[in-house]
Amino acid sequence: MQRLETVLNRITPLDAGLLAATQARLDCKTKPLGSLGRLEEFACRLVAISGQQQPDLTKKVIFTFAADHGITEEGVSLYPKAVTAQMVFNFLQGGAGVNVLARHAGAEVRVVDVGVDHDFGGCPGLIHRKVARGSANFAQGPAMSRDQMLAALMVGIELADQCKAEGVGLVGTGEMGIGNTSPSSAIIAALSGLSVEQVTHRGTGIGDQALALKLAAITRGLAINKPDPRDPLDVLQKVGGLEIAAIAGLVLGCAANKIPVVMDGFISTAGALIAAELHPNLRDHLFAAHESVEVGHRFMLERIGVKPILDLGLRLGEGTGGALAMTLIEAGVKILAEMATFEQAGVAGH
Amino acid sequence: MQRLETVLNRITPLDAGLLAATQARLDCKTKPLGSLGRLEEFACRLVAISGQQQPDLTKKVIFTFAADHGITEEGVSLYPKAVTAQMVFNFLQGGAGVNVLARHAGAEVRVVDVGVDHDFGGCPGLIHRKVARGSANFAQGPAMSRDQMLAALMVGIELADQCKAEGVGLVGTGEMGIGNTSPSSAIIAALSGLSVEQVTHRGTGIGDQALALKLAAITRGLAINKPDPRDPLDVLQKVGGLEIAAIAGLVLGCAANKIPVVMDGFISTAGALIAAELHPNLRDHLFAAHESVEVGHRFMLERIGVKPILDLGLRLGEGTGGALAMTLIEAGVKILAEMATFEQAGVAGH
Repeated sequence: MQRLETVLNRITPLDAGLLAATQARLDCKTKPLGSLGRLEEFACRLVAISGQQQPDLTKKVIFTFAADHGITEEGVSLYPKAVTAQMVFNFLQGGAGVNVLARHAGAEVRVVDVGVDHDFGGCPGLIHRKVARGSANFAQGPAMSRDQMLAALMVGIELADQCKAEGVGLVGTGEMGIGNTSPSSAIIAALSGLSVEQVTHRGTGIGDQALALKLAAITRGLAINKPDPRDPLDVLQKVGGLEIAAIAGLVLGCAANKIPVVMDGFISTAGALIAAELHPNLRDHLFAAHESVEVGHRFMLERIGVKPILDLGLRLGEGTGGALAMTLIEAGVKILAEMATFEQAGVAGH
Repeated sequence: MQRLETVLNRITPLDAGLLAATQARLDCKTKPLGSLGRLEEFACRLVAISGQQQPDLTKKVIFTFAADHGITEEGVSLYPKAVTAQMVFNFLQGGAGVNVLARHAGAEVRVVDVGVDHDFGGCPGLIHRKVARGSANFAQGPAMSRDQMLAALMVGIELADQCKAEGVGLVGTGEMGIGNTSPSSAIIAALSGLSVEQVTHRGTGIGDQALALKLAAITRGLAINKPDPRDPLDVLQKVGGLEIAAIAGLVLGCAANKIPVVMDGFISTAGALIAAELHPNLRDHLFAAHESVEVGHRFMLERIGVKPILDLGLRLGEGTGGALAMTLIEAGVKILAEMATFEQAGVAGH
């Protein structure tokens, strides 16, 4: 907890002077004022978050945190739990959606086992940080112990510190965990007081029967665990998941280290939401990659206070939306770096 | 006109079998069905448009057509007319927004003088296809003669044919022309019957006084010219512009040559709208890069029947939005090419 306090104390508001100075630089470029819309916002925020006049995005990393979920015992998911580990191997072989889109964006994918119910041995390429072989079934008790939750949070914080040491300029969040839309719905329901029905959707595509089981399981989980909405870590521990805790830690650690973060969809945003509840300025360091098809996502984004970049009907997770959004954020930074001013180009200005 | 008929006759509906077969290929990839949303649509349409099982997007080109507009005499614009030629030099030097974003997307920018009121001599790097030194003031008479309009249309068609010969896999439209939001508003008003007020906005950022002049000029232009809404070429000739005609030709030529086209914002869409009115299947070959801040744009997109890819508050033109959207379309094609199937990855499927 002390370590977490230290991290929280390092998160600061963005420098308004730096934001304004960057906008002034953009206003000298050969274009009508403000005509590049959100690309201009991306450029301004990247400068203000990083404190660099010209943010260096040479190194971009997407973290795909994998973990299993005891809640799958309730029949909430379309796929068997074994798919989590199978997909980890797919990530390591470079064949998954996030691998394809990260390559497209010029980003590296780092796969982290923070809680998969599989023994990966010393499997190369994987970042081994297993806290437990999956969270417990939160329909019957807390998903994690307090120590497990804090350990998973620290995994994310440490990976962010490492990114700082390596000079990573932009970080994306991602996840893989069969069953993990259930804890995500539980988190937003617990924090917001919205009904489980309002924030729960079909995940990877379950039918009506599984949806009924999912709604019942989440409802039971909230009733049994009684997570305290004023204590985000209590919510995370009781109805969250190990990869969600790691994402919360990663986001906090990046903000403390002045590394901008692009969060992916529903599950990533659940993690970022926990982080945002812990510090009022966290959201300044965050980009929401897209608005997911999952119905609860919108409520999370509103609660954090961020506007999604893309709306492409995505609901894959892994970090795929984040990879796509990275290309747009980088485009904004290039506008700042490469575009000619009115003076340089000999064009009549405003 | 005979040449135009030939082009129109070559435009065909997309092959439904090819669309379905491509979706079936995507459905074997390691992801929940449909979970990559519009990226899957992009992949399916690229295959069906090009007829290639694996569309080759190595060569991508954005055409930035430049032309001047007599309507600027009415005080409709914030910038002096001379900026059109100044910006052409900026494009050729690689310093404009479209240059930066095209480089980011791996696309080449081709700058075409189809009607700038400036003598570029033999200036290298520029594609010299000047039809006239700008269109006439359409508030006082037709913007172009019938021959001028057809000549500009042919410029676009010929450039599309050249792209086919070169193996270009994806084309973007763009434009530069001080004053060109006025003819664009006039075109959608003339075709749709919407009021000038409903479809006219502040362009590059004009104030209330200039906006009043702009509304009056467009209204007068429509009253004087009486363009026939059932004859898109009549609308184009009387209240359009040379670069808008060239864009209409480019879009038609690309569709005839099975090259997918990404149209940029308000002015590009005005050109594509003329093309779409000429052939019922044209829209199948088109991608709308983004929804512009210009209020008339939405009506154009609805009339064509296309859904914009991005919504980033852009209103620069040049082809900038198209460049950004290209990166997303290419991402969809890479999903099809590079992502592992359930079988390949040893992952339990649906």
